[in-house]
Amino acid sequence: MAPDVETTPPPAAVPSATVTGLLAEIAKTGADSQRGGYTRPVFSTAEMDLRSWFVDQATKRGLAVEHDPNGGIWAWWDVPWGDRSNSLVTGSHLDSVPGGGAFDGPLGVASALVAVDILKSRLQAPSRPLAIVVFAEEEGSRFGVACLGSRLTTGAIDPDKARSLKDPEGATFAEVARASGVEPRFIGRDEERLSQIGAFVELHVEQGRGLIDLDRPLAIASSIIGHGRWRFSLHGQGNHAGTTLMSDRRDPMVAAARIVVAIRDTARKQPHARATVGRLQPVPGGTNVIASRVDFWLDVRHPDDAVTASIVESIHEAARLIAADEGCAVEMSEESLSQTVHFDTGLQQALERALPQAPVLDTGAGHDAGVLSPYVPTAMVFVRNPSGVSHSPEEHVLDEDAETGARALADALQSMMG
Amino acid sequence: MAPDVETTPPPAAVPSATVTGLLAEIAKTGADSQRGGYTRPVFSTAEMDLRSWFVDQATKRGLAVEHDPNGGIWAWWDVPWGDRSNSLVTGSHLDSVPGGGAFDGPLGVASALVAVDILKSRLQAPSRPLAIVVFAEEEGSRFGVACLGSRLTTGAIDPDKARSLKDPEGATFAEVARASGVEPRFIGRDEERLSQIGAFVELHVEQGRGLIDLDRPLAIASSIIGHGRWRFSLHGQGNHAGTTLMSDRRDPMVAAARIVVAIRDTARKQPHARATVGRLQPVPGGTNVIASRVDFWLDVRHPDDAVTASIVESIHEAARLIAADEGCAVEMSEESLSQTVHFDTGLQQALERALPQAPVLDTGAGHDAGVLSPYVPTAMVFVRNPSGVSHSPEEHVLDEDAETGARALADALQSMMG
Repeated sequence: MAPDVETTPPPAAVPSATVTGLLAEIAKTGADSQRGGYTRPVFSTAEMDLRSWFVDQATKRGLAVEHDPNGGIWAWWDVPWGDRSNSLVTGSHLDSVPGGGAFDGPLGVASALVAVDILKSRLQAPSRPLAIVVFAEEEGSRFGVACLGSRLTTGAIDPDKARSLKDPEGATFAEVARASGVEPRFIGRDEERLSQIGAFVELHVEQGRGLIDLDRPLAIASSIIGHGRWRFSLHGQGNHAGTTLMSDRRDPMVAAARIVVAIRDTARKQPHARATVGRLQPVPGGTNVIASRVDFWLDVRHPDDAVTASIVESIHEAARLIAADEGCAVEMSEESLSQTVHFDTGLQQALERALPQAPVLDTGAGHDAGVLSPYVPTAMVFVRNPSGVSHSPEEHVLDEDAETGARALADALQSMMG
Repeated sequence: MAPDVETTPPPAAVPSATVTGLLAEIAKTGADSQRGGYTRPVFSTAEMDLRSWFVDQATKRGLAVEHDPNGGIWAWWDVPWGDRSNSLVTGSHLDSVPGGGAFDGPLGVASALVAVDILKSRLQAPSRPLAIVVFAEEEGSRFGVACLGSRLTTGAIDPDKARSLKDPEGATFAEVARASGVEPRFIGRDEERLSQIGAFVELHVEQGRGLIDLDRPLAIASSIIGHGRWRFSLHGQGNHAGTTLMSDRRDPMVAAARIVVAIRDTARKQPHARATVGRLQPVPGGTNVIASRVDFWLDVRHPDDAVTASIVESIHEAARLIAADEGCAVEMSEESLSQTVHFDTGLQQALERALPQAPVLDTGAGHDAGVLSPYVPTAMVFVRNPSGVSHSPEEHVLDEDAETGARALADALQSMMG
């Protein structure tokens, strides 16, 4: 006869997951057989599958899942008294650039899940509410505005502007968001969640070689260096490639090429400067046609905003001289300019105490943490990328570094519960 | 009471048209409000409207219209005895490049119609059959192969290859041709029409500045200078524009830019050489991404085929050195190579006798006359283009030069009737 002692059911098993194990679960989602790596644009089938996976993981851990008005997902480990003020928030994003790597975004989400597992193994309950957040469209690779979700949350972008952004197929953000369960009428500044965040700590794969050179697995971020985008249009004389003598040409492609070289030469002279032309479009773009116009986009970054401005002015001056020399006209217009973001000093010091081995580095990449920084205390932790390559299938993280990162995130969060 | 004399009806009125008047009738067809000029790809609504207009003009003149198997239209002024051997053929094309000028193609067709009017005013009947022909897809701007109609007619392109050519929307030539009334099963070498051509004389707007410099309205063509197309692929290291230091880069855009400049410098050193890069595509082409690959296309032309080869070899060598210097790899592949075409000497001399004021010039542009040249005696007449600009809305012909051209064409054809 069975004993009639009433037993409580065992608590939902907390999976003893690893970061590597979690990433392995999504290793096929959005894999891009053409480009290599992953193509997971926001609200695509691939990114929606990742969102479902995240909700499933959060639910397994007993976290309370909520969807914010701007396409973000929050998974809460609440304090017993139910208050969500002064919360600790960690997380990242699940979308990718076309042909991106496996870690840019998902590493921060998977590490947050494992950090919660670790904290759950140490603590009966958190002394501050803890949330894992997944932001939408961090890469800007579908609608052209990076960190769109966090920009909406903070009010840094006008909701009307966001609603009318178009993807490469011509669908608006409003249309795509609605089809994905986000009501576009309600996007915009999210007072409620902003007021809940006591600290936001984003763990992210490093996108440069800083930790390779220092031979360390983790770093604490000091700042996101300022950057801007400028559009150049070179106007020349469209003509027939076969009948126009070299001496009769005003070829904007030659002018643009000389300016691209001048840009590189200018940036090389300034320590810490980065200047890139990754996008260039000749018009009309025919093999047997001298272009009438060439458009290209310049990306410049430097820790000192004044140096960024002087680099751009030097490039503009060089462009004017080269264009004139080639009989062309040049127009330059600023498309965006972000000043250098310095992360919260107190939070950075708290991280330094929790992770005494970690060097402090700046980064040239934008992040949701950078967008949130003017509104709430934010910090970042970087995990070494042995390839030094990002936005590419070659982006990489060693298994042991990934687990070290999750443990460090857990330690840091625990120290802030203090 | 009316006289009962039986009167024959008056003959169909031969319109006393002018070239300028005819071109004014089609001045709105295919006008491109975005690019300026005209966009009239083969078998588009615009080009089909121009074909209908041509058939209407030919019919008005009592010419016998026939459609050949390769999308060409022929309008015959037959000899009284009905034979079509040893015919004099003139004409050109009605399609255009995107945003092309009003004259490239249509000038030759309109001038041929006016030349027939002039000859009809002088002659009761021709002593050699005379046809006006309109060839299909001379520009290659829809299916990528220039002079596709004349290449099919001569057998210079394999019909299977032609059938599978695709337009930018992905529609095959076979599909588009069938929808436009051309049965793709029957395209290919047209023995019947080739055997009928005794001489082909194409009048065309000049696409360079030769006649401007000589201050003459018309020229006779000696040759079409040889040319080829080569594709270059520069392979570097795709990476993040913000996090990759200048010293860590292997940027194929910088390599490509240096090669574009080297191409221009190489061509400048060779008299009569033309070398152009009008098409360039960075991959992936994002503003904040260092490209992993840049493809560009090189167009080289020179009257001496050996010089063309040596220019391309010099460029290839320069590209290898530059790519190595930038830590990139370069591949070069030939996409097409056409040797210099010398027009029929006898026909050229006949034109020189008929048009003693006209200088003799070569040209760097391809034409249906060049494609026909190895198979039948061909010649060309160029009409001055005061802008010197072609494949552009700025292409131009003075009204008086246009009429002078039509009269000269009539004179030349009449002289060949002997």
